[in-house]
Amino acid sequence: MTVKINLNADIAEGWGAYDIGSDAELMKIIKSANVACGFHAGDPNTMHRLCALAKEEGVSIGAHPGFDDLWGFGRRRIQMKASDLEHMVAYQIGALQAMACYAGLKVTHLKPHGALNNMAAEDEGYAMAIGRAIKTVDRDLIYVALAGSEMEKAARTLDLRLAREGFVDRMYDDNGNLASRSIPGTVLKEAKVATEHTLRMVQEGEVVTMSGKRIKVAVDTLCVHGDEPTAVSVARDVRKALEAAGVEIVPLPEMKL
Amino acid sequence: MTVKINLNADIAEGWGAYDIGSDAELMKIIKSANVACGFHAGDPNTMHRLCALAKEEGVSIGAHPGFDDLWGFGRRRIQMKASDLEHMVAYQIGALQAMACYAGLKVTHLKPHGALNNMAAEDEGYAMAIGRAIKTVDRDLIYVALAGSEMEKAARTLDLRLAREGFVDRMYDDNGNLASRSIPGTVLKEAKVATEHTLRMVQEGEVVTMSGKRIKVAVDTLCVHGDEPTAVSVARDVRKALEAAGVEIVPLPEMKL
Amino acid sequence: MTVKINLNADIAEGWGAYDIGSDAELMKIIKSANVACGFHAGDPNTMHRLCALAKEEGVSIGAHPGFDDLWGFGRRRIQMKASDLEHMVAYQIGALQAMACYAGLKVTHLKPHGALNNMAAEDEGYAMAIGRAIKTVDRDLIYVALAGSEMEKAARTLDLRLAREGFVDRMYDDNGNLASRSIPGTVLKEAKVATEHTLRMVQEGEVVTMSGKRIKVAVDTLCVHGDEPTAVSVARDVRKALEAAGVEIVPLPEMKL
Amino acid sequence: MTVKINLNADIAEGWGAYDIGSDAELMKIIKSANVACGFHAGDPNTMHRLCALAKEEGVSIGAHPGFDDLWGFGRRRIQMKASDLEHMVAYQIGALQAMACYAGLKVTHLKPHGALNNMAAEDEGYAMAIGRAIKTVDRDLIYVALAGSEMEKAARTLDLRLAREGFVDRMYDDNGNLASRSIPGTVLKEAKVATEHTLRMVQEGEVVTMSGKRIKVAVDTLCVHGDEPTAVSVARDVRKALEAAGVEIVPLPEMKL
Repeated sequence: MTVKINLNADIAEGWGAYDIGSDAELMKIIKSANVACGFHAGDPNTMHRLCALAKEEGVSIGAHPGFDDLWGFGRRRIQMKASDLEHMVAYQIGALQAMACYAGLKVTHLKPHGALNNMAAEDEGYAMAIGRAIKTVDRDLIYVALAGSEMEKAARTLDLRLAREGFVDRMYDDNGNLASRSIPGTVLKEAKVATEHTLRMVQEGEVVTMSGKRIKVAVDTLCVHGDEPTAVSVARDVRKALEAAGVEIVPLPEMKL
Repeated sequence: MTVKINLNADIAEGWGAYDIGSDAELMKIIKSANVACGFHAGDPNTMHRLCALAKEEGVSIGAHPGFDDLWGFGRRRIQMKASDLEHMVAYQIGALQAMACYAGLKVTHLKPHGALNNMAAEDEGYAMAIGRAIKTVDRDLIYVALAGSEMEKAARTLDLRLAREGFVDRMYDDNGNLASRSIPGTVLKEAKVATEHTLRMVQEGEVVTMSGKRIKVAVDTLCVHGDEPTAVSVARDVRKALEAAGVEIVPLPEMKL
Repeated sequence: MTVKINLNADIAEGWGAYDIGSDAELMKIIKSANVACGFHAGDPNTMHRLCALAKEEGVSIGAHPGFDDLWGFGRRRIQMKASDLEHMVAYQIGALQAMACYAGLKVTHLKPHGALNNMAAEDEGYAMAIGRAIKTVDRDLIYVALAGSEMEKAARTLDLRLAREGFVDRMYDDNGNLASRSIPGTVLKEAKVATEHTLRMVQEGEVVTMSGKRIKVAVDTLCVHGDEPTAVSVARDVRKALEAAGVEIVPLPEMKL
Repeated sequence: MTVKINLNADIAEGWGAYDIGSDAELMKIIKSANVACGFHAGDPNTMHRLCALAKEEGVSIGAHPGFDDLWGFGRRRIQMKASDLEHMVAYQIGALQAMACYAGLKVTHLKPHGALNNMAAEDEGYAMAIGRAIKTVDRDLIYVALAGSEMEKAARTLDLRLAREGFVDRMYDDNGNLASRSIPGTVLKEAKVATEHTLRMVQEGEVVTMSGKRIKVAVDTLCVHGDEPTAVSVARDVRKALEAAGVEIVPLPEMKL
């Protein structure tokens, strides 16, 4: 049986007169786009444009809600009430659903952005708030969650569809958590190393941790980045290597979740 | 056959720590609420709360999109590209649809807010942009349009459901347009006068203009206000008078449109 | 020699069409106003109006910078780089200085708002960032700092003018810190109790802690609130009691700091 | 006697994670920078960085206030009360004055941005509101005004310092007004043509209009742009040609105004 995997990236993060990121290139590499929804980035025009592009490229789309923090690009941790967060996430899902109508697309997944993603990975309250927003607005949405995080638990608790996320360019510790970026060498900048790491994760369900152990890490989707000059080319190489190894790259709704 | 009419009002215009308006009282008088969608006013929490209240009170809900102008409360005229406006309106519709899921309600109409409403009444480009957003996101949404305005024309051109709007407390000129607020006496502040004016409009399809002429004005819905101390009590008196005269006050989806 | 004390309150927190708080009443009780500067609340019109009122009432004015968080009213903790915070605070000081020109007033103090105040009380990085903004924009500004906090230390380190702040309605623990609001009884809602507490603090430089100990707490300014119905009347009673006891209530620049 | 002229450009229009424009290159060509103040673009960090750069390059700085319209980048016309506008402009001036403290610079001029500049050129109410803000906050600020516009009149009425602005790459009609961009050929994209046009304006105080007439146009400062790829190189060529012709390029405060 063919091994399948999904590649996702954050997309549509321009705002008004401002452009950012490498949308056009990334959209040719990934199969699922996390579309910024207007709070940390993204605006109705950007969302509209990206949905049209997703249609063209055969990429599935997901809501990429963030904190209401355009200035901080959603990268600042904000302490808020879980119910405020839940409603804010629901609002953003709906906004994208409307913009997707223009392309005749359905929103099929959700992945939180930046600091919200980091906080929800660790904090049950945030993870559950996001899950409840999904459950209320469209319970078929796939909750994209860092493998092993509070979000994964929340998805299971709420009986939501779940896609466990891994990273093509990040090392793990012995507990299966991402090693901190601040530790030298934990971000894999060489395509060759990233590719090996990725193939092992996809084909064998394992990673080699920083201490050299092999541990199990089950992933359904891999996150690639576009915000650094090398990131796009690493992503491209990883995709080629996956395809060369016979792995099929598919949109999230085509994964068995 | 019983004469039917709808009463609508602008609702849910608080924001964060800020409250405004007389939502609780108005929701007992009206049958359709225009819910602010987060751009000129309103936030996910306010929208959530109002939807729950609408469910309780048997009030139908509609999107009340405005300019992205919280500071100006959507009352400042902004010149923008029609496509920007269209996407901005579509986004706001979707946001409310999501919040309505919490109450198990469907968004059934749309009425633009403030300066956007005034501009769209006069400007074909704006009126059509709003109409196209409706058509794309949910073509069953009822377009609430000032009777005789460019919005009415746009709704007809795009073959959308239309509710022609009149005002319980405003005089008309001989062309069937609202007389400017700046002309003394054109805002009807006495409940008795407003009531007579409203009954004539609803029962006979006519208004007496400023010059004393009787002209035809067909309306499906009447707008009441909550922003002045007297407005709520005028609205309450008008409702009582309508009911006493045997007019049935119904949610917009129950009108024949 | 007459004992002097200052009373301060947060003021001018309306925004656009939204009003909040009890500015007119509080301005007759206090002698120094912390004016919201447009980020967590307050807008150019509100600032303009408050400065005129301060002139009339003989109240000194200070910048009341907050996080860029209107939706959260500056009450949400936000993690940000110290240099971002410093510039954001400097910006807000300048904005108020400009608005003060309309009333011919000088901005004479600064007190951070809400979550920023709480974080800067505990976090050296935030406390110093605020201090550096003061030092750069106007080194004569008085830094209003919770007595014993990191802000007090930062003011001393940077050799800035300092006003140590106490609360008329809050109990302290044995270390001289404010007891958490979540502990029952730590907010003094009875005017009589608040008054005794305040007089002891002002006249004897002491508080009775929750455990019953008397400890030293030196304060130059007392914060009163306007956001609860009882707060204004408690503030009024405290002021009367201070005056009856011969304490002179003065603007911050008239304190020996 | 040496002929002197000033070159100005709009600068510092990034925001948060977003960058835009060609600040570094333009700052080597111009002598006065119009610094975005946080409303249509620009944030405390951007303002801080630009002030430091201005210090380094010997460029004078001015406030570049715009509408509170980040999404529209200040390019959308907004109808507002003159007093609202006045306070909003005053606020922005103060904000920049504070940020300039970091570089030890003084803010010496003001030029409105985008749609506000266009509206104030035509509308006495807006032009005077801006002038009153200048007069209140710092009456020595030079009001940069399109030659012949309502802003020029307002500066004279209020007895403010005035710099009449011309454009290196725009044609004029017989009344001395800028010909509309929508007329083909009115934007001068060839460096040679722009240079001739500019030299005539600076050395002879004249332009050749679209109909071929020579008319008087007195200018103190010339606006160059950075938002199109060719704009920077046109600006550079114009500067070289001016210098080759013996014209001295100076900061605004060194012009006789």
